[in-house]
Amino acid sequence: MHSRSTPGRTRWPRRAAALFFTLLASTALADPEDAPSKVPVPLAAWQDTDAKKAIIDFVAKVTRDGSGDFVPPAERIAVFDNDGTLWPENPMPFQLAFALDELKRRLPEEPEWKDDPTVQAALAGNLPALLADHYKGLFRIIELTGSGMTTVEFADRVRAWFATAKHPRFDRPYDQLAYQPMLELLAYLRAYGFKAFLVSGGGADFMRVFSERVYGVPPEQVIGSNARTVYELRETGPVLVKTMDALFIDDKAGKPVAIHQFIGRRPIACFGNSDGDKEMLEYTTIDNPRPSLGLLLRHTDADREYACDAKPKSSGKLVEALADAPQRGWIVVDMERDWAEVFAD
Amino acid sequence: MHSRSTPGRTRWPRRAAALFFTLLASTALADPEDAPSKVPVPLAAWQDTDAKKAIIDFVAKVTRDGSGDFVPPAERIAVFDNDGTLWPENPMPFQLAFALDELKRRLPEEPEWKDDPTVQAALAGNLPALLADHYKGLFRIIELTGSGMTTVEFADRVRAWFATAKHPRFDRPYDQLAYQPMLELLAYLRAYGFKAFLVSGGGADFMRVFSERVYGVPPEQVIGSNARTVYELRETGPVLVKTMDALFIDDKAGKPVAIHQFIGRRPIACFGNSDGDKEMLEYTTIDNPRPSLGLLLRHTDADREYACDAKPKSSGKLVEALADAPQRGWIVVDMERDWAEVFAD
Repeated sequence: MHSRSTPGRTRWPRRAAALFFTLLASTALADPEDAPSKVPVPLAAWQDTDAKKAIIDFVAKVTRDGSGDFVPPAERIAVFDNDGTLWPENPMPFQLAFALDELKRRLPEEPEWKDDPTVQAALAGNLPALLADHYKGLFRIIELTGSGMTTVEFADRVRAWFATAKHPRFDRPYDQLAYQPMLELLAYLRAYGFKAFLVSGGGADFMRVFSERVYGVPPEQVIGSNARTVYELRETGPVLVKTMDALFIDDKAGKPVAIHQFIGRRPIACFGNSDGDKEMLEYTTIDNPRPSLGLLLRHTDADREYACDAKPKSSGKLVEALADAPQRGWIVVDMERDWAEVFAD
Repeated sequence: MHSRSTPGRTRWPRRAAALFFTLLASTALADPEDAPSKVPVPLAAWQDTDAKKAIIDFVAKVTRDGSGDFVPPAERIAVFDNDGTLWPENPMPFQLAFALDELKRRLPEEPEWKDDPTVQAALAGNLPALLADHYKGLFRIIELTGSGMTTVEFADRVRAWFATAKHPRFDRPYDQLAYQPMLELLAYLRAYGFKAFLVSGGGADFMRVFSERVYGVPPEQVIGSNARTVYELRETGPVLVKTMDALFIDDKAGKPVAIHQFIGRRPIACFGNSDGDKEMLEYTTIDNPRPSLGLLLRHTDADREYACDAKPKSSGKLVEALADAPQRGWIVVDMERDWAEVFAD
């Protein structure tokens, strides 16, 4: 991967950074107001631009005990979109790549799929056909590859896919494409007592396979699109069978709905990259009785990642939320300008 | 409240107990395998019977590093039913008492309720009528008192009710009726790195008003019956309006379904009191790859609380789960025999 180190900037080896965060965490918990001034700034993959400064200032403000802006640790809820915010969503969301690969893998054992136009469109890589008519084809593919099996069977399939599939452009496993600056941001917020949740249009059962390992976000902090399961006590033990009933799409106005359903209080920090994140940015930042931070990541870097804000290949369109950013006070991160690195080496 | 102290048993003042738990927590995290043997047992409101011993043995086993039964802290998920397990559900679940009081309070401003037979049955205290026909009347009452307003307005109403309403028999505010032994158990598990979730038939929006203050369980660890909200960006800021759409009843087979939806992994400890908890006890304890603990609380104490297992006045029937307990290895707690105290003084 390309790297654009600022001259003179100290780059910490990953192990040292982990140790640093552990120490910082103890310090922060014991005496939060001292931490920001005593220790160097650990967001090493971020350029020293306004975006980074705004993040650091916000965290310092809400963790400084005794100030009117202080937010108790229990209320330090941060929500992160996943696709396009924590890792790429180009040329298509990784879960869609999984679903297409699953169709291919299972095709020999599902002969009736040969006559299914949606399956054929998917196998031909015809994304527009899948996304037409309110994503009707996409949901059919998700139904075929993500329901009718137990939650454990589904997780096993996802795990097997991550172990072998590679991203077509970057030629590395999909779960090694998390953005380094965002991994640092997750760790930084955790060190200051924040609890980070994923709030993503992706399926919760898909994300939970990797969220803890890749992001340090445990399954109970993963909110995604979901549908009801059915409980069965089988000879082999209890199982939950995946269905498409009561399907909930965790996108746009669904995001604040899901945040309330799963978290039950308003976040104070929200990180997104597309119009699908507009409502959760609003819910986090407008008339929040607590200080709050909203951040939009722009994909502006064709060299190291993609430049595709307004015209993405599949999902992730960013137009409306970007237009609202100035009046809402949302921080706009320009990947090309504000990130020293995109992916970990 | 009545108290049955065991002669010679040390009763710790509450402040000392809190300090003790704080110290224990640091010890447990630093060196979990030493904690159980070095410190006295803190479940003071429990009699020294088999039930208490089984809990302590289980916690010691799964937190002893290096043993084959060790469970990493991230997987120490404990789920608790609320009504009847953490506080009484007699003469009716407290949320139903709230709903009936709400009907009375709002009656003057809702003239059409005078002709509504369900409202009249509720105001007359005719519980059987509300529970007939698959709880049809009850849902109507919940709809009238728990939808059509914002989540913030609902929480304010619940808060106001807890501040004034009193339990008809115990003559104290409902939120001062948490069982002392269960509060100690919650604190004990927390000290050993467990994360406790409420998994209750009660409404999540109702429970979240008191769960953190009463049980130390933050809103994001409260799973309850729920329905979709609708997001609106109003002049005054973003709101979520409560509806009855996609109503989910978090009871019986719904409990493991909700546990998967909200937590995404199997609990290793489960605490309930009725047939409504049978499936989540199964999901926790049958063929779990981790060691697990299931516990059923029997209401056997007419003197200090209620004796009503098989024939409760409203909800909380316990017959099937109790019959299954021996073959499943679930611990059966007999309130009269196993609890030295029921309520805090």
